[in-house]
Amino acid sequence: MLDLKTYLTLKQNQVDARLTELLAVNPESDKLSTAMHYSLMAGGKRLRPILCLAAAESVGRINNDTLNAACALEMIHTYSLIHDDLPAMDNDNLRRGKPTCHIAFDEATAILTGDALLTLAFEILLSEQGSLSPEEAHNKLTITHAIAVAAGARGMISGQMMDIDSENIELSEADLKKIHLSKTGALIKASLYTGGVLGGGSPEEVQALKIYGKHIGLAFQVADDILNVEGDPLVMGKAIGTDQALNKSTYPSVMGVDRSKAYAKTLIKNALDGLAIFDGRADPLRAIAGYIIERNQ
Amino acid sequence: MLDLKTYLTLKQNQVDARLTELLAVNPESDKLSTAMHYSLMAGGKRLRPILCLAAAESVGRINNDTLNAACALEMIHTYSLIHDDLPAMDNDNLRRGKPTCHIAFDEATAILTGDALLTLAFEILLSEQGSLSPEEAHNKLTITHAIAVAAGARGMISGQMMDIDSENIELSEADLKKIHLSKTGALIKASLYTGGVLGGGSPEEVQALKIYGKHIGLAFQVADDILNVEGDPLVMGKAIGTDQALNKSTYPSVMGVDRSKAYAKTLIKNALDGLAIFDGRADPLRAIAGYIIERNQ
Repeated sequence: MLDLKTYLTLKQNQVDARLTELLAVNPESDKLSTAMHYSLMAGGKRLRPILCLAAAESVGRINNDTLNAACALEMIHTYSLIHDDLPAMDNDNLRRGKPTCHIAFDEATAILTGDALLTLAFEILLSEQGSLSPEEAHNKLTITHAIAVAAGARGMISGQMMDIDSENIELSEADLKKIHLSKTGALIKASLYTGGVLGGGSPEEVQALKIYGKHIGLAFQVADDILNVEGDPLVMGKAIGTDQALNKSTYPSVMGVDRSKAYAKTLIKNALDGLAIFDGRADPLRAIAGYIIERNQ
Repeated sequence: MLDLKTYLTLKQNQVDARLTELLAVNPESDKLSTAMHYSLMAGGKRLRPILCLAAAESVGRINNDTLNAACALEMIHTYSLIHDDLPAMDNDNLRRGKPTCHIAFDEATAILTGDALLTLAFEILLSEQGSLSPEEAHNKLTITHAIAVAAGARGMISGQMMDIDSENIELSEADLKKIHLSKTGALIKASLYTGGVLGGGSPEEVQALKIYGKHIGLAFQVADDILNVEGDPLVMGKAIGTDQALNKSTYPSVMGVDRSKAYAKTLIKNALDGLAIFDGRADPLRAIAGYIIERNQ
């Protein structure tokens, strides 16, 4: 039987080791390089890269390109956190238990560090193209394009824009879902898609992974909102109650804590149903689905 | 004989028309879409896309991919201006004769608009991959990777970081050159490279275009610094004297106005020498080299 904790630790270590290698490209500006390293290696859960790797394993195996793409996804996630934490946005001082990038450095450095991580993600997604087969080249183009769409103005950034603009506004459940399908869901879904394509999955398998991704993406956000009400700041490494302080609509504020928990469970059930076509190799994805709503950080 | 003004207007119109089409992807968030349109269509010189198109013409012809890539380069340039103008960076209120993005909208919107334009650039560079030949797919991967490197932590962003950190510090000529080779030069060189590769240029031709690009990139910055001292704010659509106000080292402050002008001329001569292998199809590039140091905006 799968021990999820061991699996997650193993994959986190694999991702962290490759991230360290990928950061060692030695940028000209030392401060920029230091800040990129600081934010990226601050010890996140590595959920997106792990989902990408687990998706690849559920249809085939992890190769070098998949591990690089997984790291690129984490860079895009980290860039979005750095920018979201800025004073003009969510104005957060603490992230992953450490001062946020603009607190540890300064605002200009934080803006440029986010920009640099986003750009480095694309550099990595497109690297080592010398000896690719036509199919590999096509896959690289396809997944990188999909990641750009997911991270862009019709995906993650649109979600963040709507999220900021909805402060002090009471949202409906439908609006909330729309925001989070973009803000958190798009990149999580793209992580599953990337792993599925690079792992050599059939169109049917890749489609199933996307359905799983859509549901755990939403469940992840519902769980996050609940943690912002009931979580332990010491365990989480960030403050709680911040949504209420900003007068933000969240799942608990819109549908109550109990219904939010029930909703998260339904989403996880739907995610697991999406995995029905896979054999035991998808067990890590199954276990991660449960972890997403049971985690305490 | 080539009429440069007509050539530039023609190409600007071509780029503006395609940019408008590319922006019509209808993002979910109206405010984000409006801000992207506002900053991108504020009427810049379109130097990078025009260089890309002129490079393609000097070795072959402009196809659909080249025009899209040219537009992507302008999006990356515009994103960098939006972020550089932010209060935490250069704190500029006026750009291309209009209020900067964070003045016309707000800081959060300006940060996200820059992020969205950078991401959209990569989406566009990688789009329409369905019917590509292996060679076309390879070229797309190669140029997009090169653009990511040029725009990233070893290129444009590194230059901006060094530029900000050098306020109130007296730089040597060598340091100044290093900053500008990254800050302005890298993306200009990548524009020539992109046009050369997508236009079907030989390795020798592409190399010659990069040499031309390196020299006009530096010349462009020297001319910009001179305009910041001697330019007409009404013609330029932005304030002058801002470098001195920020106590920034510039070519005029380091080597004086007269030596700066002579240096710019030498750079242009080197750029033209780089074009020696090309026939009359490179005449637009030759004319643009002259325009770069003779322009008044």
